[in-house]
Amino acid sequence: MNKINIALLGLGNVGRGVWEILQTNKEEIRERSGYDIEVSKILVRDINKRRDIDVPKGILTTEPEEIFNDESIKIVIEVIGGVDPAKDYMIKAMQSKKHVVTANKLAIATCGSELIKTAKEEEVRFCYEASVAGGIPIIHGLNESLTANKIEQIMGIINGTTNYILTKMYLDNMSFGEALKEAQEKGYAEADPTSDVDGYDAVYKLSILTYLAFGKKISVDSIYREGIRNIEAIDIEYAKEFGYVIKLLAIVKDVNNVLELRVHPTMVPARHPLASVNDSFNAIFIKGNAVGDLMMYGRGAGDLPTGSAVVGDIISILRNDTDPIFKLEGSKSGNLKQINSMENTKSGYYIRITVKDEPGVLGKISTILGQNNVSLLSVIQKGKGQEFVTLVFVTHKTLEGNIDKSIKDINLLSSVKKIENIIRVEKMEV
Amino acid sequence: MNKINIALLGLGNVGRGVWEILQTNKEEIRERSGYDIEVSKILVRDINKRRDIDVPKGILTTEPEEIFNDESIKIVIEVIGGVDPAKDYMIKAMQSKKHVVTANKLAIATCGSELIKTAKEEEVRFCYEASVAGGIPIIHGLNESLTANKIEQIMGIINGTTNYILTKMYLDNMSFGEALKEAQEKGYAEADPTSDVDGYDAVYKLSILTYLAFGKKISVDSIYREGIRNIEAIDIEYAKEFGYVIKLLAIVKDVNNVLELRVHPTMVPARHPLASVNDSFNAIFIKGNAVGDLMMYGRGAGDLPTGSAVVGDIISILRNDTDPIFKLEGSKSGNLKQINSMENTKSGYYIRITVKDEPGVLGKISTILGQNNVSLLSVIQKGKGQEFVTLVFVTHKTLEGNIDKSIKDINLLSSVKKIENIIRVEKMEV
Repeated sequence: MNKINIALLGLGNVGRGVWEILQTNKEEIRERSGYDIEVSKILVRDINKRRDIDVPKGILTTEPEEIFNDESIKIVIEVIGGVDPAKDYMIKAMQSKKHVVTANKLAIATCGSELIKTAKEEEVRFCYEASVAGGIPIIHGLNESLTANKIEQIMGIINGTTNYILTKMYLDNMSFGEALKEAQEKGYAEADPTSDVDGYDAVYKLSILTYLAFGKKISVDSIYREGIRNIEAIDIEYAKEFGYVIKLLAIVKDVNNVLELRVHPTMVPARHPLASVNDSFNAIFIKGNAVGDLMMYGRGAGDLPTGSAVVGDIISILRNDTDPIFKLEGSKSGNLKQINSMENTKSGYYIRITVKDEPGVLGKISTILGQNNVSLLSVIQKGKGQEFVTLVFVTHKTLEGNIDKSIKDINLLSSVKKIENIIRVEKMEV
Repeated sequence: MNKINIALLGLGNVGRGVWEILQTNKEEIRERSGYDIEVSKILVRDINKRRDIDVPKGILTTEPEEIFNDESIKIVIEVIGGVDPAKDYMIKAMQSKKHVVTANKLAIATCGSELIKTAKEEEVRFCYEASVAGGIPIIHGLNESLTANKIEQIMGIINGTTNYILTKMYLDNMSFGEALKEAQEKGYAEADPTSDVDGYDAVYKLSILTYLAFGKKISVDSIYREGIRNIEAIDIEYAKEFGYVIKLLAIVKDVNNVLELRVHPTMVPARHPLASVNDSFNAIFIKGNAVGDLMMYGRGAGDLPTGSAVVGDIISILRNDTDPIFKLEGSKSGNLKQINSMENTKSGYYIRITVKDEPGVLGKISTILGQNNVSLLSVIQKGKGQEFVTLVFVTHKTLEGNIDKSIKDINLLSSVKKIENIIRVEKMEV
């Protein structure tokens, strides 16, 4: 049996998951890779920190050079996260002719092409299945299984924190604040939940998926981003009534060779598979021009699921599965794919408005929508004989620009108190 | 740009899908494979048959030897189906040092190991992603992405015909007969629907999945098989009432190193992702000890989805992605995994019984269940003041043997007219 030494950079959540899988599934991994894998060094910040896993102290080190200079180490697993110093470590590892496996979404999203370029130059493997959607094999899927397809669009629930919160709001009728608090208590949300709740995490992951599926490198700043802070319990209730579920979707669509990219709350039909993705699960829904609809669902984070992807990449490297690197280098960017501006995107829209309970309000608003080419699918008015009443409109698919113009005009009506919320609706036609 | 010649055996549904994808996505395929792929020969039975695709007549042939003896042909795509003559053709192709890609579920299920053995001996590639679940990349998933896992169980909706029928019964309240008729009219079911409706198709696919996930070759005859013919509209209604959906599930579970394999209708919680898999879509739900729950959903059949998998395999071969053949040769069969008998499997059970509307019937039946260690979850009796009434029981998870014994005793009660139906219930605990 061949033996091979690998090193871990970092021993946090994912690092521990990788360690555990290498121990627990040693037999399977040996059979499938053809190698006895030994973790010979682990880079940590504090050798004496108390850890709840059984790692021999002798392999811990605080010196990255010990790893880069050790010729017996063939693969380096980067599970520190973030850009500094992880990116430099990965480059140094590759310059030392070591293959690299990473789970680092931030580094891939911001410096992915530099890392891939280094791998090509140094003729080593660079794998990052674990950087998007945890254990879900989406990168293998796009790079190796769906290669016969033109990808038309990808819609993903790719942030577990926000999905957990929205699930609690939907299934348990919690308010946003209550659901966030529970998520924090259970470890699904950080003390500062901004990155998740405001959609930054989803934007990073979407940029990686876009690069893989369309070959185009997108600056994360050019992606429209709207988190879930403005979703109220009442919106969840109305969605239920219309037969929809609210999810935070990351969307990339190829519309006549122009890419639309956006992250925002979206109403999804309750019968659609994406609607059944609950708690901290993730799902990525792809439309390819040959395969049609394809969805991958699973745990998007966590020590073991992410570790599953990391170790899967290690096995891939050991088996010499070809790395289709040449594909990832923007192989399709020849067809210049401009990013669509939001006003040119099309959606259905849910619009909740508080108005004075006066004659003709509904008519005025409907008229404005009609004048702006917005056609109505549903309307709900539940009058309670009070000064103000809530009007809820759901429109047919229309240009966001038409909605923007309608909203401007609606806001000028004296009977309109406030446009409380606007949520995009995806009818998910097959 | 490198050029390569390939040949198709067959030009039916899938063959046409492969042809179409090779034309439509020519650019993408060229970029991703590094080759200009030309179909230089196609084996058909009737050269002059009218076809609705644009295939040059010059490449059609009725002589398989023209393909096997043509040294310029490097890959042979078998899309005839069935065992004879497809299996022999594939072996001849491999003996002629050609790689083989197939969509042939029957051949893989019954002669898979012989075909794989031939590939190893001849040192050529043998790929069959398209043979299970159409375009869903389950074989790549199991062989390449989930390699760090011990697979614990797989549950699949892997027959589109029965899923279409059950969806119509559920969403449109049709009877089995009505739904079957509509399926036949729309081309989702054959004139003789036996293979699909009675579960044979699902059994073949399950045996392939089992071989891949557990390394154990299972005779299709040893798989418990129960189709959907006995599902009545009333069962669908009761399922709805309990919050369940009825699906035909193919199940393989590793229970303490013993494999359970079965295909049968199953009640699935309406909120579970498997429950949202509708119409002719397929889904495969995997539990791995690292990745946790993972589901792949998509089109399990059809010219383009199946073609997507075939062409994906062609690209794989051209890119030299290593074929983990060594894994598939029952690499784990060292741990002798006996097949569990059905009486040792555990499930919840839905039991619908017609009884005389007499005092004490419910009590007697409940007592019998209790005596056989079957604990009740729910009971519904909707009395209508008639001679007979329907009792519906849903049990907690119990051994099938306990249910068998209970049914024997219940049948002896004079007040029991008929045990109308028994359907297994999977609560899908995470």
